[in-house]
Amino acid sequence: MRAVVYKGPFKVAVEQVADPKIQHPNDAIVRITSSCICGSDLHMYEGRTAAQPGIVFGHENMGIIEEVGPGVTTLHKGDRVVMPFNVACGFCKNCERGFTGFCLTVNPGFAGGAYGYVAMGPYPGGQAEHLRVPYADFNALKLPQGNEHEEDFAMLADIFPTGYHGTELAQVSPGESVVVFGAGPVGAMAAYSAMIRGAAVVYVVDRVAERLQKIKEIGAVPIDFSKGDPVQQIRQMRNGDGVDKGIDAVGYQAVQPGEKDKEAPSVVLESLIQIVNPTGMLGIPGLYVPSDPGGIDPHAKHGQILLSFGKLFEKGLRLGTGQCNVKRYNRYLRDMIIAGRAKPSFIVSNNVSLNDASTAYEKFDKRVEGYTKVILKP
Amino acid sequence: MRAVVYKGPFKVAVEQVADPKIQHPNDAIVRITSSCICGSDLHMYEGRTAAQPGIVFGHENMGIIEEVGPGVTTLHKGDRVVMPFNVACGFCKNCERGFTGFCLTVNPGFAGGAYGYVAMGPYPGGQAEHLRVPYADFNALKLPQGNEHEEDFAMLADIFPTGYHGTELAQVSPGESVVVFGAGPVGAMAAYSAMIRGAAVVYVVDRVAERLQKIKEIGAVPIDFSKGDPVQQIRQMRNGDGVDKGIDAVGYQAVQPGEKDKEAPSVVLESLIQIVNPTGMLGIPGLYVPSDPGGIDPHAKHGQILLSFGKLFEKGLRLGTGQCNVKRYNRYLRDMIIAGRAKPSFIVSNNVSLNDASTAYEKFDKRVEGYTKVILKP
Amino acid sequence: MRAVVYKGPFKVAVEQVADPKIQHPNDAIVRITSSCICGSDLHMYEGRTAAQPGIVFGHENMGIIEEVGPGVTTLHKGDRVVMPFNVACGFCKNCERGFTGFCLTVNPGFAGGAYGYVAMGPYPGGQAEHLRVPYADFNALKLPQGNEHEEDFAMLADIFPTGYHGTELAQVSPGESVVVFGAGPVGAMAAYSAMIRGAAVVYVVDRVAERLQKIKEIGAVPIDFSKGDPVQQIRQMRNGDGVDKGIDAVGYQAVQPGEKDKEAPSVVLESLIQIVNPTGMLGIPGLYVPSDPGGIDPHAKHGQILLSFGKLFEKGLRLGTGQCNVKRYNRYLRDMIIAGRAKPSFIVSNNVSLNDASTAYEKFDKRVEGYTKVILKP
Amino acid sequence: MRAVVYKGPFKVAVEQVADPKIQHPNDAIVRITSSCICGSDLHMYEGRTAAQPGIVFGHENMGIIEEVGPGVTTLHKGDRVVMPFNVACGFCKNCERGFTGFCLTVNPGFAGGAYGYVAMGPYPGGQAEHLRVPYADFNALKLPQGNEHEEDFAMLADIFPTGYHGTELAQVSPGESVVVFGAGPVGAMAAYSAMIRGAAVVYVVDRVAERLQKIKEIGAVPIDFSKGDPVQQIRQMRNGDGVDKGIDAVGYQAVQPGEKDKEAPSVVLESLIQIVNPTGMLGIPGLYVPSDPGGIDPHAKHGQILLSFGKLFEKGLRLGTGQCNVKRYNRYLRDMIIAGRAKPSFIVSNNVSLNDASTAYEKFDKRVEGYTKVILKP
Repeated sequence: MRAVVYKGPFKVAVEQVADPKIQHPNDAIVRITSSCICGSDLHMYEGRTAAQPGIVFGHENMGIIEEVGPGVTTLHKGDRVVMPFNVACGFCKNCERGFTGFCLTVNPGFAGGAYGYVAMGPYPGGQAEHLRVPYADFNALKLPQGNEHEEDFAMLADIFPTGYHGTELAQVSPGESVVVFGAGPVGAMAAYSAMIRGAAVVYVVDRVAERLQKIKEIGAVPIDFSKGDPVQQIRQMRNGDGVDKGIDAVGYQAVQPGEKDKEAPSVVLESLIQIVNPTGMLGIPGLYVPSDPGGIDPHAKHGQILLSFGKLFEKGLRLGTGQCNVKRYNRYLRDMIIAGRAKPSFIVSNNVSLNDASTAYEKFDKRVEGYTKVILKP
Repeated sequence: MRAVVYKGPFKVAVEQVADPKIQHPNDAIVRITSSCICGSDLHMYEGRTAAQPGIVFGHENMGIIEEVGPGVTTLHKGDRVVMPFNVACGFCKNCERGFTGFCLTVNPGFAGGAYGYVAMGPYPGGQAEHLRVPYADFNALKLPQGNEHEEDFAMLADIFPTGYHGTELAQVSPGESVVVFGAGPVGAMAAYSAMIRGAAVVYVVDRVAERLQKIKEIGAVPIDFSKGDPVQQIRQMRNGDGVDKGIDAVGYQAVQPGEKDKEAPSVVLESLIQIVNPTGMLGIPGLYVPSDPGGIDPHAKHGQILLSFGKLFEKGLRLGTGQCNVKRYNRYLRDMIIAGRAKPSFIVSNNVSLNDASTAYEKFDKRVEGYTKVILKP
Repeated sequence: MRAVVYKGPFKVAVEQVADPKIQHPNDAIVRITSSCICGSDLHMYEGRTAAQPGIVFGHENMGIIEEVGPGVTTLHKGDRVVMPFNVACGFCKNCERGFTGFCLTVNPGFAGGAYGYVAMGPYPGGQAEHLRVPYADFNALKLPQGNEHEEDFAMLADIFPTGYHGTELAQVSPGESVVVFGAGPVGAMAAYSAMIRGAAVVYVVDRVAERLQKIKEIGAVPIDFSKGDPVQQIRQMRNGDGVDKGIDAVGYQAVQPGEKDKEAPSVVLESLIQIVNPTGMLGIPGLYVPSDPGGIDPHAKHGQILLSFGKLFEKGLRLGTGQCNVKRYNRYLRDMIIAGRAKPSFIVSNNVSLNDASTAYEKFDKRVEGYTKVILKP
Repeated sequence: MRAVVYKGPFKVAVEQVADPKIQHPNDAIVRITSSCICGSDLHMYEGRTAAQPGIVFGHENMGIIEEVGPGVTTLHKGDRVVMPFNVACGFCKNCERGFTGFCLTVNPGFAGGAYGYVAMGPYPGGQAEHLRVPYADFNALKLPQGNEHEEDFAMLADIFPTGYHGTELAQVSPGESVVVFGAGPVGAMAAYSAMIRGAAVVYVVDRVAERLQKIKEIGAVPIDFSKGDPVQQIRQMRNGDGVDKGIDAVGYQAVQPGEKDKEAPSVVLESLIQIVNPTGMLGIPGLYVPSDPGGIDPHAKHGQILLSFGKLFEKGLRLGTGQCNVKRYNRYLRDMIIAGRAKPSFIVSNNVSLNDASTAYEKFDKRVEGYTKVILKP
């Protein structure tokens, strides 16, 4: 079959690879109908990870069940499904408590597995014609037959639950004020989720005009950090007050306001410590890594960040981190889509043929021509 | 000052009563600008309680601070405020945990106090020109100056938080399916709150066309129980499935579908036990009383209800009851109103001069001329 | 193999039955080392259910893995394991949220499955030499090799988690006062769990001297209801106060104090409504059934109970019901046993050869010779 | 009256100061019977804060009500009471949600007030004969009359709730494994609280033999960090596994293992990130400050700490910080003491006359002669 194969920094190719096979009784084979490119794919694409050439990319996958192993109970050929980006067993100490992003079974020696990602286990990605899904009863979520909501459902693999996860880590509740740093796909989904959960007001900080425009359209308040310190901007709007909750949807590649593209890994966390009120909570779905070869200094290279921990303590803040346990949320977010109560596809910018993946990666990496969220179609 | 005084079954009068005075250093006197008539006022009005003539009615009060006692810290003359219907001390074992509806201080021998209500303590109501507010720092919520959102804020005294309380007791979460029994003010507010909290779909059961119309307008699904068993209607819409959560916004004066106005105190609870799925939760803000002189049979008179407890247990259901702890929610619901994210005044039907209270009670009791939620203006 | 087979009311026999086989890739076969008789087995034994002759009893099972299917990942021949009494799939909507007692997969048309129990699915019990365990990775909990703590670990299949479940449903927290009705195995485990969770004081109501003695030994306060109304006894001890939380470990076969052995299905619930303070919670692990052929009156036969719901509402009580989701707790309770912090085997009265099961059932049913908790040894 | 007055670094004196007076209707005057010296008093004593001479020390206070203002409702002359170290109003946005350590009223411009502490508001301390208690109904917890449990109850002002707070921030649950860094009074109370909450095993890291001995006596596992890396020691005991939850009861004055008394502000947090398992939680009651004139380097002086945030994120850890909201816990911890279920006084080393406060401070600061927790008796 055809698949997107990593060839080295800034290079992917659509090549012929071996078809996936049922390897275990609980496996299923899915014929992919949509597979998105994720911002985190770019970490590998840009050569900023230990990824070796040969990896098939793609962890945001949906499609149609083609074949199931003899141990699969609830799935049948023809079922339409979407898979969490996490690969999880469903029965380990972490999975049984809902922490499917930290499965202890599927990636021995590490807590958590994923499709098509360096160090996340031996699971080829779904930017391809077919995908093997382990523990399929657990890892595939059924969707209504047909092709309605295809783009919305595709967001259930990662980006919608991941944004929602930020609001869950921060325990966003009705009537609260919230700030989200970052208006990329995760930040937009976090802001959207905060609105869904009934936040009174949601401020979203970014500097890209198109992103801020979309933020405005969903009813949140855009804050352009290229026009001044976002903390001050928000305090001014609130007569000096801060906010109840904060979400970091940026992560370790944050850049210093005012200094174009200069990385400042702690700048978002520091801003959150400043703007979130005492007793508040921070939800941090934005990625921080323990090792970053491309870090700006030795500390950054080792995933170390200098934090105003004394101030954080003085305010009695709490924070939650980590990759999303997609399965905790995807069923409920799916039902919101079906009921017409959520339409996360507003962030999708392009549907592109799988054959054109190489160009799509390049454009997405450079954020040219409005490439913000791309779905590959085999 | 003028006040609405209970004279006996089906009779209230606007009379001159003594002006309230500061009796304790923590008291404040509020000049009432809006005071609503509540469905629970009708229990007294209809003579179905032990209320004696002479009570000044009114527990849904808002207005302007006129005077504060020497112990009041954060309120000042001229502040615009709304008061929870509960009177609470703020420092007893229940208040300190947020159970302000069950204060152990203000109504000795009973857990909970309120304004203008039989057996809820010595606190005259606010259907009057002025109101004494005990422990004013704790019991008055500040509002923005001016008169914007007057009707919306008036809903913060009782009906909006009480509806919201139903969703809290049932722990309604984003993406869930919910049924609300009753589309009166509490039921409408419960459905509205469920929508605010991100429910995927909310079914609301009633038989009054105007109410069901409003339910439709807020995006919920009206179920007319005069057209057939609501449990069957909902299952049919859901391909046989039940719902995740249920709310009883009716209480002990429920009537039997098909048998006009014949009371059947357990009918709503029984329907909830049938339609809510295993592992679900029931939120019960609708009133049940331990003693009802007008009950249809000896059990009803003693507040006893025959329940399918075996079925409830088999399904592993959980339920929560009790009057609302308004102070838990009113600050956040206020902020939603200010931000334009909630507009609970859609249930207000009439603004009436305090002088016309007698007629207003009569019309509201008979539900004539669209009298569903009436605000008295002194 | 030999197994305990139900032959009809008050009659079981140890007979030869077919050996269990791997039927599905996720199955495992366990050689039983301990299988307890449960109080709920007596419901079938006494002919008070729809159970037909031929059922192999036994849902409290532990033993050694003998064989695993090709889909089993984490279990191996020789592993020592204990199984929750629930049979669960691990991937349905209920299992994924931890409600393994209400699995939607293993017992089609019903939420929940179990071994050796009427209407709980096609799963023979473990009062036998061997047991087939479906979805074995999910349903078997590994234990330390050897035979240490055999009796303690045997309690993990049902009775210890079920008692603990009562404290979880009532959200028993450190420093609280708690009442438990019933000092049988579930009640004793509920009281023991409340102590483990840091309750300040735990009252346990029963009338059997030996049981009350054990209650005293674990540091709880025995209340003998044959010596007077337990509600009054507790209030007297507490200077008139009630308690924070209550647990019903009796269920529908409760008997009226003072009237020996006359069933009064609501008496425990009514006592809880009286003695638990406003804002309190009731945890109800004691069994209530939707249909009881032996019920004392038509309502009881249909699982209907007359409850003082008005009083319950006035107090703002919350309650939780349903059979235990064993898998939620068994891993942690196991670790307490291993660490020497819990020793639930104090309730075990007898270890009996499987061959003597018939006599054991008879004695246990009559509670003669101290038969309170019996372990069958194949 | 006599009081302990701060005179400058390493110098306090017992001097005559003005008697406290009722200044507000909600005040009470308490005759002190016990007032403890807290480790945080030493921060001021050692001159490591901005404290100016003249401050009366003492925030761990208990005694007898001597006089109440006209607004006080539930306290009377002669009542025995203990006060949280926090001064709080009871009605602000933070207090009403139970965050009494972050009161917005009592210390304008800052979230949180306390007795006798720099920057915590104008509230003289209680190492004196009398103490003024603002909002006395809210801030004084009643105790049984007499003098039983005097030392235990004195621990309710700060140290027992603060240790317990650590277990609450980490959500320690029955059956979990926990590590506590620090076996001083807060660490000992955190370990004790973890045991009370049912932890399976609690490791406590320190290097002082006497402290580790006490840890052993309460059933926890002492880890002597002077004998090797505590992370490795614990992993070794657990066959390589980490622990579920971690508590930092040390704070910013942590010292590097192996390098006597050299401060290393991040060493405890780094160890927690290493030893706590993925999905775990960190409770951080140990003090971190935004400004430390005596910090070892410029970052430390500004309360900045270098953290392995990438590793923390990879593990999906959550953490909670901040000073304890004593009022959330003190009522329940009191009830455990009364019931004989908790005896926190095991950490008290000395009862000393108030007149000898100067010497007591000196000995406690040097930790000589077993001075670990000192109660001053006026």
